[in-house]
Amino acid sequence: MTTRIWTAALAVIGDEILSGRTQDKNVAQIAAWLNVQGIRLAEVRIVPDTTEAIVEAVNALRARNDYLFTTGGIGPTHDDITVDAIAAALGVAVEFHPQAVAVLERYYETRGGLSEARKRMARVPAGASLIENRMSGAPGIKIGNVFIMAGVPHITAGMLDALTGTLEGGLPVLSRTIGCWVGESEVADLLRSAEKAHPGVAIGSYPFFRDGRTGANFVVRATEAELLDTCIVDLTTALTAAGRDVVAGGI
Amino acid sequence: MTTRIWTAALAVIGDEILSGRTQDKNVAQIAAWLNVQGIRLAEVRIVPDTTEAIVEAVNALRARNDYLFTTGGIGPTHDDITVDAIAAALGVAVEFHPQAVAVLERYYETRGGLSEARKRMARVPAGASLIENRMSGAPGIKIGNVFIMAGVPHITAGMLDALTGTLEGGLPVLSRTIGCWVGESEVADLLRSAEKAHPGVAIGSYPFFRDGRTGANFVVRATEAELLDTCIVDLTTALTAAGRDVVAGGI
Repeated sequence: MTTRIWTAALAVIGDEILSGRTQDKNVAQIAAWLNVQGIRLAEVRIVPDTTEAIVEAVNALRARNDYLFTTGGIGPTHDDITVDAIAAALGVAVEFHPQAVAVLERYYETRGGLSEARKRMARVPAGASLIENRMSGAPGIKIGNVFIMAGVPHITAGMLDALTGTLEGGLPVLSRTIGCWVGESEVADLLRSAEKAHPGVAIGSYPFFRDGRTGANFVVRATEAELLDTCIVDLTTALTAAGRDVVAGGI
Repeated sequence: MTTRIWTAALAVIGDEILSGRTQDKNVAQIAAWLNVQGIRLAEVRIVPDTTEAIVEAVNALRARNDYLFTTGGIGPTHDDITVDAIAAALGVAVEFHPQAVAVLERYYETRGGLSEARKRMARVPAGASLIENRMSGAPGIKIGNVFIMAGVPHITAGMLDALTGTLEGGLPVLSRTIGCWVGESEVADLLRSAEKAHPGVAIGSYPFFRDGRTGANFVVRATEAELLDTCIVDLTTALTAAGRDVVAGGI
């Protein structure tokens, strides 16, 4: 049985990531969330806060993936140009979303009122709907297959939570990990053989150096649980036969 | 005086980043290092361990940037396909680099010898030179304007160290930060005016929520120190005049 694979791309919008000032957390967070929805994160681009770069990335990525997520650039300040750039990419106008205005009016009622700057956060590409923001006022935005999310990770987390279970996906990719205190080069042939012997699984080898010792974790991924389990058993047997102590769950 | 801007792109190669299993550290590390070299990180792509994806990213990014860095996929195992994919992108063969073989022979002399799997790490696109690896055996690779680096962050750090001062760049981008305990929307107009009044500076606004309070840091970037200082003074004056306490250096 061949199952359709659903893919998503992510465009991280922000000079602060490209300057090295801010450590991105959204790639890992969105990747893990997508996986639970049965959607694979296929590619990521990190682009600066310029219309040209955002338009290019959005149009390339939305065309060849089922979903495109963006993070960053939806706040109230002059460097927040994501909504305008995505509207330009889609060839639509920017308009105030009445429901977003109402949300912001309510949110800022006890916080000094809805100023012009704050009202900017109710601007959306024409035809968009909203993604609930459970953490702060300004909502996320959905238009077509594009999901426009916040840059601040805990706000993005709340938006992902609001989207959980609403996106069509396929089978989640399952994974199991085993580890050995071994240089990965010593078991390279064995890993290659194990992957070849189990079509449908992918084995990743991730070396590390810890407490003065060399080790590696081997991550086996598949969409079928039985296939995954068989491969883990066979790989464990092969490593043990080669004289290696295998740590279930990884090191 | 107009100064040429030197740009670099980064291709992060690795299913482990796209699956959410591993938190990338190389984007921030390489961005900060490049900035000191007077080179701006202009774009990043994170791609899976497939030849097609690597070839596409490498050819798009190397053509429109002065430099392209890649991280990941240069180890000894079957999922390490970076060298082959980059050779394919460049249209050159893959060959053993004699000096890399010698380095690996020496490194593995006391570590069980140079097996076939380990020798794979001496394979390079034809015509490449090596980047010293001060942390472990296998070297990085330079071919044309492409710099092929390790995926493990502390090994990448050693390779960057070996490259320090060897790449032509322009003026480093300087930055200074000030912070306020304020919602960024309350000072959005003021920030926009400050950026407009100082051509050549970019002001980024980075809100946060900490200890139950809302704050924002304002990062001013420019290549000229005097321009940067003037903008910081003017912005501080404007914020103070608006009744805000300004924290030099950011919060």
